[in-house]
Amino acid sequence: MNRSYRTYLVTQEDLSVDRSTREVVERAIEGGIDAVQLREKHATARRRYELGRELRELTERAGVDLIVNDRVDVARAVDADGVHLGDDDLPIGVARGILGEGAVIGRSVSTVDAAREAEANGADYLGVGAVFHTSSKDDVADDELAIGVERVREIRGAVGIPLVAIGGITPENAASAVAAGAEGVAVISAITGADDPAAATRELRAAVEDGLEGEE
Amino acid sequence: MNRSYRTYLVTQEDLSVDRSTREVVERAIEGGIDAVQLREKHATARRRYELGRELRELTERAGVDLIVNDRVDVARAVDADGVHLGDDDLPIGVARGILGEGAVIGRSVSTVDAAREAEANGADYLGVGAVFHTSSKDDVADDELAIGVERVREIRGAVGIPLVAIGGITPENAASAVAAGAEGVAVISAITGADDPAAATRELRAAVEDGLEGEE
Ligand code: NI
Repeated sequence: MNRSYRTYLVTQEDLSVDRSTREVVERAIEGGIDAVQLREKHATARRRYELGRELRELTERAGVDLIVNDRVDVARAVDADGVHLGDDDLPIGVARGILGEGAVIGRSVSTVDAAREAEANGADYLGVGAVFHTSSKDDVADDELAIGVERVREIRGAVGIPLVAIGGITPENAASAVAAGAEGVAVISAITGADDPAAATRELRAAVEDGLEGEE
Repeated sequence: MNRSYRTYLVTQEDLSVDRSTREVVERAIEGGIDAVQLREKHATARRRYELGRELRELTERAGVDLIVNDRVDVARAVDADGVHLGDDDLPIGVARGILGEGAVIGRSVSTVDAAREAEANGADYLGVGAVFHTSSKDDVADDELAIGVERVREIRGAVGIPLVAIGGITPENAASAVAAGAEGVAVISAITGADDPAAATRELRAAVEDGLEGEE
């Protein structure tokens, strides 16, 4: 990973209040986002590839990491920094074989056992969640019940790689997830659905920094 | 391509009458199938990867080509012979970059213009269809109206790479698609749904050979 992921935007155009994902990413970069995950759950591979090339240009220029959700081939095709994988996706080792040692590979986990396994398999960071309860529309990990910050603390105690808290994160609760051991927070709607995505990104970063200061 | 694709099975476990795809593929190999496309439209990438590894073992041993539908990363992960792409998938050149010059890349087309474009982009064969009307359950190219054998003939006149006719193919109509210029036929249910998939594969091959003899 090129840098710390304090704030991490997961894209979803249909949760972006009639703005394009490109526009939301431009504004998030303006607000100091550290990483962008190209998700676009309902888009075709072709669309994700085309959008990924656009986002690669924007993020590269800004020194922001670009991560592709799920599709290792799309990650490689757009020269992303890495890929984010879940239980339904290719194994970490397979993605590593295709993307190489330099790639950032993230893995979604919600339990201590899964976190240990992902670290053992070579994950570079963990997306931990859903930390807070989320509405289904907004959801990043919609099959999961909220695991709460206590679980973040347990996972923090079990593995050495960075944790990014995800699921129901807002400027109000971000500090508590970070105080529990996450190095940053990932969001969709808190940025994509904000009136001002740049301001929302700044607000989220400030909350993360509060949490880091308050860390036990 | 290692060999001619006279008969080409597209897998779909939920159209396999309670048999596993593994079992259907074993029987199709017994019947002399030339190529197997791992499709499994509703399966996760993880499932397709695991099934693909099983099918790779079976097909490798039998000298049958294994093609993965859509996912270039899964194709590479299971060491498939190639990938089959449609309009919604990654571009042919991108797949070529990931899989290399030796990979077989197929492309679904239904028009002469798309066939020319796919050939120019480096496709190794074309899946042409839907040639015949298909029920939606059985469908390989379910958004397409049937293009008919006349279109196969036009495409045959426009490009030099092999054509595999797909969509509504049965032992009864296979010869007419081949006589119009396809080098073989691809099916789902005609094999997966057959009482005896090995016998169905043999019957289909016999029909293709009839069509080749009758070729104008
Ligand atoms: Ni879906």
